[in-house]
Amino acid sequence: MSSTGDQENERNAVGEDAYDGSDIYAEDGSVRSDYLMHVGAAIADRDLLYLRQHVARLHASEMGDVLEAIQPEQRRALVSLLGEDFDLSALTEVDEAIRLDIVEHLPNEQIAAAIGEMDSDDAVYILEDLDQEDQEEILSKLPFTERVRLRRSLDYPESTAGRRMQTEFVAVPPFWTVGQTIDYMREDDDLPESFTQIFVIDPTFKLVGALDLDRILRTKRSVKIETIMRETVHPIPAEMDQEEAAQLFEQYDLLSAAVVDENNRLVGVLTIDDVVDVIQEEAEEDLMRLGGVGDEELSDSIISTSRSRVVWLLVNLGTAFLAASVIGLFEATIQQIVALAILMPIVAGMGGNAGSQTMTVTVRALATRDLDIHNAWRIVRREAGVGLLNGLLFGVLIGIVAGAWFQDYNIGGIIAAAMLINMIAAALAGITIPLLLDRFGADPAVSSAVFVTTVTDVTGFFAFLGLATWWFHVS
Amino acid sequence: MSSTGDQENERNAVGEDAYDGSDIYAEDGSVRSDYLMHVGAAIADRDLLYLRQHVARLHASEMGDVLEAIQPEQRRALVSLLGEDFDLSALTEVDEAIRLDIVEHLPNEQIAAAIGEMDSDDAVYILEDLDQEDQEEILSKLPFTERVRLRRSLDYPESTAGRRMQTEFVAVPPFWTVGQTIDYMREDDDLPESFTQIFVIDPTFKLVGALDLDRILRTKRSVKIETIMRETVHPIPAEMDQEEAAQLFEQYDLLSAAVVDENNRLVGVLTIDDVVDVIQEEAEEDLMRLGGVGDEELSDSIISTSRSRVVWLLVNLGTAFLAASVIGLFEATIQQIVALAILMPIVAGMGGNAGSQTMTVTVRALATRDLDIHNAWRIVRREAGVGLLNGLLFGVLIGIVAGAWFQDYNIGGIIAAAMLINMIAAALAGITIPLLLDRFGADPAVSSAVFVTTVTDVTGFFAFLGLATWWFHVS
Repeated sequence: MSSTGDQENERNAVGEDAYDGSDIYAEDGSVRSDYLMHVGAAIADRDLLYLRQHVARLHASEMGDVLEAIQPEQRRALVSLLGEDFDLSALTEVDEAIRLDIVEHLPNEQIAAAIGEMDSDDAVYILEDLDQEDQEEILSKLPFTERVRLRRSLDYPESTAGRRMQTEFVAVPPFWTVGQTIDYMREDDDLPESFTQIFVIDPTFKLVGALDLDRILRTKRSVKIETIMRETVHPIPAEMDQEEAAQLFEQYDLLSAAVVDENNRLVGVLTIDDVVDVIQEEAEEDLMRLGGVGDEELSDSIISTSRSRVVWLLVNLGTAFLAASVIGLFEATIQQIVALAILMPIVAGMGGNAGSQTMTVTVRALATRDLDIHNAWRIVRREAGVGLLNGLLFGVLIGIVAGAWFQDYNIGGIIAAAMLINMIAAALAGITIPLLLDRFGADPAVSSAVFVTTVTDVTGFFAFLGLATWWFHVS
Repeated sequence: MSSTGDQENERNAVGEDAYDGSDIYAEDGSVRSDYLMHVGAAIADRDLLYLRQHVARLHASEMGDVLEAIQPEQRRALVSLLGEDFDLSALTEVDEAIRLDIVEHLPNEQIAAAIGEMDSDDAVYILEDLDQEDQEEILSKLPFTERVRLRRSLDYPESTAGRRMQTEFVAVPPFWTVGQTIDYMREDDDLPESFTQIFVIDPTFKLVGALDLDRILRTKRSVKIETIMRETVHPIPAEMDQEEAAQLFEQYDLLSAAVVDENNRLVGVLTIDDVVDVIQEEAEEDLMRLGGVGDEELSDSIISTSRSRVVWLLVNLGTAFLAASVIGLFEATIQQIVALAILMPIVAGMGGNAGSQTMTVTVRALATRDLDIHNAWRIVRREAGVGLLNGLLFGVLIGIVAGAWFQDYNIGGIIAAAMLINMIAAALAGITIPLLLDRFGADPAVSSAVFVTTVTDVTGFFAFLGLATWWFHVS
């Protein structure tokens, strides 16, 4: 113990609770401030005893939350103080920027040693972000089989099942009995850290079936594996996109699935915990794309955040100037009736809101595959109906308010008609634009919003100002 | 067989493939049109042989997709033709409206019989949507223990772990050996359909530990359960919100977790497949709420869809009139310089886009708990920096274009300044509004967009028109 002051006693007393794990969190789910204070003080004091007792033994995901909550200098100091006691799998739980920063400050020897201990999917997760040179150096320090396995995973493209899979699995031949299988598992030291099914393979490693552990436990020792295995096992080709693989997991409620190469040879296993991450990421991606932001992270700098958002704003700027030029066509009308300038953003804005409602539903339904050719036409009709109904409702409402405001029921009638037109346009744009983008292989989440807004702005301004010009005979 | 024409032979030939399961899907993930045609024809012909062979044997989720793809009358006919062969768990895979429609057309006897066969979580999923009377009638037809179990689940509020849990589980006392446990599983007929861990309980049903199946399989028969069980098992209180429970699953990579009552007695088990659904739903909810739509489903009618979207549009209408009244303050200025009316939507619109970028990131980060008190201040500063940077960039850009368009560099300068002001306002509103809403216990996804748009519209119009009025000395 490096010191025995009161402060440290208190730290250890609180730490006693903190070590329990779930207790490091406050009620709102953030890491407790007092715990972080103690950790910070322990880092400053180089209090290894406290750090080993109360930080090193956290669950990897808790450690990840702690790393994200403390300052960058504290992070590096903590990792270097813990040395071998730092569990590198915590790095799979933090932002990419933080992961890279920590890894850069670690000696390659230490990374290699840690990676040798990890499940291959976690190891790949950390290795894939490193530059070629560091990757090679670390791989070269690993035992041969380990190295070959990790290289194979890394050879598969990003976002494929092959890249995400774990290469440790249990596989037995079909002619073994339940008893032999259990004995094998009792004796073999080289089993994966945890598993929920075993695979059945032929001598050439070709997948012939799978078997859940509960099935083995319910069956008598003398029964042959081939008589109780499942033959329909939804094997996942290693080249399959992770999103598609995730859909298979959801559809068939899988806990894990065999990953096979082009010859149907078993090369790894994809597990539900990785798939849950994929599902989260994909849902997040749609939400971020609809909001006009890419895959930025909270730890990104001002410059890189700004840069990643500029493209979307630039595209929208084009749309905005297009809408402005539509208004420009009616300069003379606005000069005569300024009320039009005051009211026109209402028509365009309400159309934009209605359009984005329809678009949100459509994009989500396409992502979950609830919307397809069998019901597309029915949904288009429904949306047109909703647009008509809400157009009538809001047309009348806005017409009355605007008419009363400017004491001119001509204007009220004109805005009502324009609203109706724009709400129907919004509904049709909101459904057809994502459908068409999807049909032509574009991601509807990325680009739908720009097109829909263009339609509702242009239609809104054109309908409102055009009707007014015609009605009031402005020339 | 009801007929032996060529058409039917063809149907059966194609059906031979179709039965395989994965083959009912076309490449884009929708159900194959030719398969649906055959199913439709078989329903019309009352061809029971085909339906039993090629439809009844589908996986529940595949059956769900088929039910969603065919017409309502076909659906009811199919279910009634299949009778006892129809697997009711397919109903857990379809839209609520479709589920209710089918259940209403089924006799309560058949529902009760099917529910007796199901896992309790699926049974509850179907029962919870029924009205009190039908629910009671069905429950009364079930055996006592079954009835008590289902009632207990139904007594927990919607969206809690208790409502989602499965009441079938395997539990053993701590003093049993691995051998005894395996023998028990080999002999007991009343085990759950599938399971990945067993629980360890004391004589009063209090939870003392848990054990993954792979651990049992690796351990010698003579070893006592208490020596190999895990004691930290993250038990989930039955009253816990399902979203919170899902976060525990994600954090600790759980496959299943014990659900306990207020006395720490084991009442059920929550499994990862239910949690995946919760994660999906929650992610979907945020996306839908940001887009201004509630929990509508694709099968909803025009009227109910229209009604569910009206509230959001009404709130936005208030905002739109507020923005319009800001423009109204500067009527005289617009009358003199119509160019302002043409350009003002650009200032407001670009601010709105920038604001919703920041807001999207913030809402998502709050939902995933990546944003909390430890980094909030840093992120606010970052967003302000991004707003300043993009404000300068787009201010200059728009200023040059607008100045050139109207051949008036006063207007260019004014719009540049207004853009800068609005982009900073957008960034600050985009980050602080969701943070404040979250702080005060409101759901930031539901209401952030309205407030942010209000800020960017009002600031945009006020800054642009106000600066112009001041600069050109309009009185």
